[in-house]
Amino acid sequence: MSLARGREFLSIPGPTNVPDVVLAAMHRPAMDIYSADLLKVTESCLADLKKIFRTESGTTYAYVANGHAAWEAALTNVLSRGDKVLVLASGRFAVGWGDAGAMLGLDVEVLARSWHEAVDPAAVEARLKADVAHAIKAILVVQVDTATGVVNDIAAIRAAIDAAGHPALFMVDAIASIGCMPFEMDLWGIDVAVTASQKGLMMIPGLGFLAASPKARAAHATAGLRASYWDWTNRDQPEGYRKFCGTAPGHALFGQRAAFDLLFAEGLEAAWVRHRALAAAVQAAVEVWSRGGGIAFNVTEPAARAPSVTTVLTPGSDPERLRDFTRTQLGVILGSGLGELSGRAFRIAHMGYVNAPMVLGTLGAIEIGLAALAIPHGAGGVQAAVAALQDHFR
Amino acid sequence: MSLARGREFLSIPGPTNVPDVVLAAMHRPAMDIYSADLLKVTESCLADLKKIFRTESGTTYAYVANGHAAWEAALTNVLSRGDKVLVLASGRFAVGWGDAGAMLGLDVEVLARSWHEAVDPAAVEARLKADVAHAIKAILVVQVDTATGVVNDIAAIRAAIDAAGHPALFMVDAIASIGCMPFEMDLWGIDVAVTASQKGLMMIPGLGFLAASPKARAAHATAGLRASYWDWTNRDQPEGYRKFCGTAPGHALFGQRAAFDLLFAEGLEAAWVRHRALAAAVQAAVEVWSRGGGIAFNVTEPAARAPSVTTVLTPGSDPERLRDFTRTQLGVILGSGLGELSGRAFRIAHMGYVNAPMVLGTLGAIEIGLAALAIPHGAGGVQAAVAALQDHFR
Amino acid sequence: MSLARGREFLSIPGPTNVPDVVLAAMHRPAMDIYSADLLKVTESCLADLKKIFRTESGTTYAYVANGHAAWEAALTNVLSRGDKVLVLASGRFAVGWGDAGAMLGLDVEVLARSWHEAVDPAAVEARLKADVAHAIKAILVVQVDTATGVVNDIAAIRAAIDAAGHPALFMVDAIASIGCMPFEMDLWGIDVAVTASQKGLMMIPGLGFLAASPKARAAHATAGLRASYWDWTNRDQPEGYRKFCGTAPGHALFGQRAAFDLLFAEGLEAAWVRHRALAAAVQAAVEVWSRGGGIAFNVTEPAARAPSVTTVLTPGSDPERLRDFTRTQLGVILGSGLGELSGRAFRIAHMGYVNAPMVLGTLGAIEIGLAALAIPHGAGGVQAAVAALQDHFR
Amino acid sequence: MSLARGREFLSIPGPTNVPDVVLAAMHRPAMDIYSADLLKVTESCLADLKKIFRTESGTTYAYVANGHAAWEAALTNVLSRGDKVLVLASGRFAVGWGDAGAMLGLDVEVLARSWHEAVDPAAVEARLKADVAHAIKAILVVQVDTATGVVNDIAAIRAAIDAAGHPALFMVDAIASIGCMPFEMDLWGIDVAVTASQKGLMMIPGLGFLAASPKARAAHATAGLRASYWDWTNRDQPEGYRKFCGTAPGHALFGQRAAFDLLFAEGLEAAWVRHRALAAAVQAAVEVWSRGGGIAFNVTEPAARAPSVTTVLTPGSDPERLRDFTRTQLGVILGSGLGELSGRAFRIAHMGYVNAPMVLGTLGAIEIGLAALAIPHGAGGVQAAVAALQDHFR
Repeated sequence: MSLARGREFLSIPGPTNVPDVVLAAMHRPAMDIYSADLLKVTESCLADLKKIFRTESGTTYAYVANGHAAWEAALTNVLSRGDKVLVLASGRFAVGWGDAGAMLGLDVEVLARSWHEAVDPAAVEARLKADVAHAIKAILVVQVDTATGVVNDIAAIRAAIDAAGHPALFMVDAIASIGCMPFEMDLWGIDVAVTASQKGLMMIPGLGFLAASPKARAAHATAGLRASYWDWTNRDQPEGYRKFCGTAPGHALFGQRAAFDLLFAEGLEAAWVRHRALAAAVQAAVEVWSRGGGIAFNVTEPAARAPSVTTVLTPGSDPERLRDFTRTQLGVILGSGLGELSGRAFRIAHMGYVNAPMVLGTLGAIEIGLAALAIPHGAGGVQAAVAALQDHFR
Repeated sequence: MSLARGREFLSIPGPTNVPDVVLAAMHRPAMDIYSADLLKVTESCLADLKKIFRTESGTTYAYVANGHAAWEAALTNVLSRGDKVLVLASGRFAVGWGDAGAMLGLDVEVLARSWHEAVDPAAVEARLKADVAHAIKAILVVQVDTATGVVNDIAAIRAAIDAAGHPALFMVDAIASIGCMPFEMDLWGIDVAVTASQKGLMMIPGLGFLAASPKARAAHATAGLRASYWDWTNRDQPEGYRKFCGTAPGHALFGQRAAFDLLFAEGLEAAWVRHRALAAAVQAAVEVWSRGGGIAFNVTEPAARAPSVTTVLTPGSDPERLRDFTRTQLGVILGSGLGELSGRAFRIAHMGYVNAPMVLGTLGAIEIGLAALAIPHGAGGVQAAVAALQDHFR
Repeated sequence: MSLARGREFLSIPGPTNVPDVVLAAMHRPAMDIYSADLLKVTESCLADLKKIFRTESGTTYAYVANGHAAWEAALTNVLSRGDKVLVLASGRFAVGWGDAGAMLGLDVEVLARSWHEAVDPAAVEARLKADVAHAIKAILVVQVDTATGVVNDIAAIRAAIDAAGHPALFMVDAIASIGCMPFEMDLWGIDVAVTASQKGLMMIPGLGFLAASPKARAAHATAGLRASYWDWTNRDQPEGYRKFCGTAPGHALFGQRAAFDLLFAEGLEAAWVRHRALAAAVQAAVEVWSRGGGIAFNVTEPAARAPSVTTVLTPGSDPERLRDFTRTQLGVILGSGLGELSGRAFRIAHMGYVNAPMVLGTLGAIEIGLAALAIPHGAGGVQAAVAALQDHFR
Repeated sequence: MSLARGREFLSIPGPTNVPDVVLAAMHRPAMDIYSADLLKVTESCLADLKKIFRTESGTTYAYVANGHAAWEAALTNVLSRGDKVLVLASGRFAVGWGDAGAMLGLDVEVLARSWHEAVDPAAVEARLKADVAHAIKAILVVQVDTATGVVNDIAAIRAAIDAAGHPALFMVDAIASIGCMPFEMDLWGIDVAVTASQKGLMMIPGLGFLAASPKARAAHATAGLRASYWDWTNRDQPEGYRKFCGTAPGHALFGQRAAFDLLFAEGLEAAWVRHRALAAAVQAAVEVWSRGGGIAFNVTEPAARAPSVTTVLTPGSDPERLRDFTRTQLGVILGSGLGELSGRAFRIAHMGYVNAPMVLGTLGAIEIGLAALAIPHGAGGVQAAVAALQDHFR
């Protein structure tokens, strides 16, 4: 008999749990789009995005859009038809970004990588060094790939670009990482940073965010792909309604404002520490379970496992059975495998508005499910997670 | 560094977690109190209360009131100044009910019992047999005492009353038990059943509920303590506004309606099974922790431990330190010790809208806290709870 | 074809429109009833009630209860079985309060008055002078009777009591007036003031409020009707949970807090002025309509017409037809006639969270309905209301 | 002293009032984006959009985007760089749509028109006949221009295109009209219809909607401007996540679903009738006011005045003073003049979730403001609106 009745545990890697105060902030009557209140909340969100992207010299933009749209906003503002871009693959999402670029007429080259590994900075350096003519205009990479659970070392990739002395724009998708781990736009020399509202930023989907470095804005001046809705110049005008090229997303801005308030009340660095501790707990559990043979990490190298999501392979069994069990019997929604990993993996999110008991409840549900479905696993995963969290407070 | 940021786990024995759909049902504009919609929701709630109290012959009442008020409603409708009542103690709450009776002018006798034990049906039988003149007009007992975590065997107490051949009204407080375990008003010969909205019935505080047997309603005819606001006869009139003696609690009724819908969608018996399984998980964890010496069950006899709340003693340490730790570091609110147990115990609720991962998260937080505060305990409590839940699905 | 689709206009005299921020304040997860936050909001509400009742020497109480319950709380705390009370009738509600007293065993005498007139202070003075033995222990009156739309002159009644040199407790029901017009507990020598959350205080129903003067508290010491749930002494204890005799109404307190914040942001006196201006607009419209013969004021004397509700007679036609029309065709809910006026009147509320366009919209709906149903009326009522409001800004 | 305290009247032409049930539908926990529930609500919204656009042969799309973005989606899916488009001006918005096209590389020609007139179908016919080579690939027009308050006769423009025998795609922006007046995609031979959530469709901003005729989809096959995020082919895939090219806007979809439910419960045609009646009321008031000289209709020809918004000129006075007065003193937010009309006009919306008393309240506030600010006007505008509404029910 089901033990699911209670608050559902949404453990998918986005959209993530939305804090009650954020939902409440959106539950308000329609508002005058020309009011001072709305302009103020717009400006405060754009200013806080600079703190979140960790940039002083960059300029931030907010779009009524999702993350895929933000990819397009990034590309159209700085590139021209026929420009060559180098995609650093580490799963699904950088490749997807490249696909969007190809459709816009970019010449897309993918630096391939298995779905179990992070981008190799040495390979990046080698490829760039080979581009002696500097044909490559931009390099696209994700910090965390939510499909594979890989985290890429953005600082190391920057170092590789520098080592190659290559002038390409460095464009980073931080959709599944920002708010969950260090991201340093200025320090790491990122030219265009892309994110969205619905993961580490704890909002419902509907807002895409960008930050552009001075170098990116210089490239913007001659970009041939510019389009009215995405265009930075259009949005740089002082009038409030220009900030969103049309109707501002009033309700969403008040929601995002509330979420930012929560994030800064905790402290951005404190949130990073929290995610690291929760990831360690999840990894401790998966490590124990993997001793049984029916469970395995997707990402081979421990250092390449993301602090925000863990992708777990289920050799020999269908992960959908486990997902169904935890959902219907225990009220826990796990992420499914995507792309190559469809039918071969499930995903545990530990991203955004999530605390230790939420993670332990999710892990407990998995271990109950593994037993119920006779999926071979080492017992004691949850207790290992408890121990990892005890270590955090030692 | 705190890992509390995320949905707070409220693990106190009432008010309990309110489902989102219940909160949403109350978030509505003010309504016409004479509308057909409001009358309909009133009547459907009163009808469903009969199913919840498990009575066909009884009549149900809903008050704008809390549980203590419902006690008073129960007493004033059937008793007269000077009437003798027998309180069956098993902690704090039946005694409190008796205190309210004393203030109304009742002659209150308490059948004493330690704070670690359930009511002894044999003692009840003996006391009633001694009352050959049938001076005792009513017997007051709680099914679950939220302070001690004791559950009383109401069927056995009924049998004791019958064995004594005593005609007293049998009045049962089911505030901390209804919705969480079997309660059988008709089957157990209960004359007045009392409950409230904010525990197993998953609503915010603000509604008190009663059910009266035909025998109780007969006693009502001659009761001397009757008061307008509580009075059943006043409320028995057909006009909608009489149902609440004044303004109906419209928003609360829509909320309670949504909560009842959830309860019946799950099934009342299924909810009982769920609570039993979750209680077993909690008890398994406490059992393991108690091996260390710094943790102990308050209720000695396993059979007397409630399915809705577990009271845990902390010999040698201050439970408030643990409560502070889990609240500030992990986002888990535990119940404090009440009355005699103040400063000596904490309480874990597993009552109402609560599922397996919520319980595991709470237990995990406690075990992290026990380690952090060096409270002697057997390790592995959470895993024992996982095992208990695995057993549930075996 | 209906033109009702849009925000419903609730123009009944309670429960009144609840501001969105108040509803939002209640849409929050269940909370720890022992938390500092809850204690703080409790204390701030009790403190603000003193400002609202305009008392420095009085003590305030908040009950999980409706207004009729608050009546009972008032009586039981200061009176004893057999005490004589004088009810000053001016419609339905003071009489109802007296009925509740009679059931508690009080000796209730009603100073009668038609349903079209305010209490006559001279008659009060005469009656009290006749009570040379001071048998009358308390005088009960409402400031505004929501059935008749009468407002009583509480200061004048106080003066009458003083002129008679009578020591009875002066108990005033301000349920339909507080927040809408001057109420001066200390200045007017009121001993027990009663109100509730759902009218001028802009909250959902569910909270009853009292204030007790030092003289009332002295009477409390010897009151024989005291009951645990209502008892002031019980609630005077410092522990937070004693403030509500059982579970505190956490959600409701946060809602009332938000409503009080709105009231003080506007200013209590400013709210009084607003209600006076809106009442003038409504009265101007009714005055014009009444020229047609099918519409008339219920309250004969203009000075006795309440600033919070206007009761309108419909000689020659069924007011329910009009109410149905405005509700189904225009989205406006009018109040129905109560008691003697049932089937003979409708009521227009201008009470609580209501502004000029809300009043004009309601009046417009009525005038459209009067035409549609061929109820004889002078045309131009709405424009007269506009003119009255133009005068307000002159 | 202000009479604004109460529910704010938002009378701007978008974003419009959001029904409480719509806001409530969005106040829900984050959800699994792969859940059957979400797919179902997506599909039902896309299906209902066909009913709203009145198309059987068309295909509908929903974007996380605002209205300006939907313009871009329309253009990129069917056109190629260098294509000539003819913009039919009638104020601000078709011209803005053309500007977006110009930035994408289209060759934009504007058929000019003053800000006080509708598009002249004869001029359209003449221009198209002159395009013997059929260089013009698309014709862009708005049904209602929210800046000028002009409504264009789309059927007549279609007839003009047919009379010219011109094959250009007919693209219509129905953002400020759909849900408020007849729109007949199939009947009027519209190829691409564009709208958004926040006006007649009663939702918060954040969703843009398109419908494409078979002819438009044929043009899509060879369109050179196609971009991944907007692309119909991408979104035509069966997988749920393809419907939004990335994360689906779950909360917004549940909100839009609730709004559509309201619209169909009323009936689309009934909503059109309601808007027509409310527009007549507003126009009756403005007609009266305009007799004083300080107030005038912006749109000269009565037939060209929109059923959803009325733009009112204030010759001789600053409309912002009036807007400030009604906002601060009466709680009514009027729309400001845009573009050419900035500082010369205000706008009254009667669009979406709006009923007769809302309109009367807004008109009343304006007439109070006109008097308070001594803006010359004919008195009795509100009563004229009442009379117009009385006529509706005759």
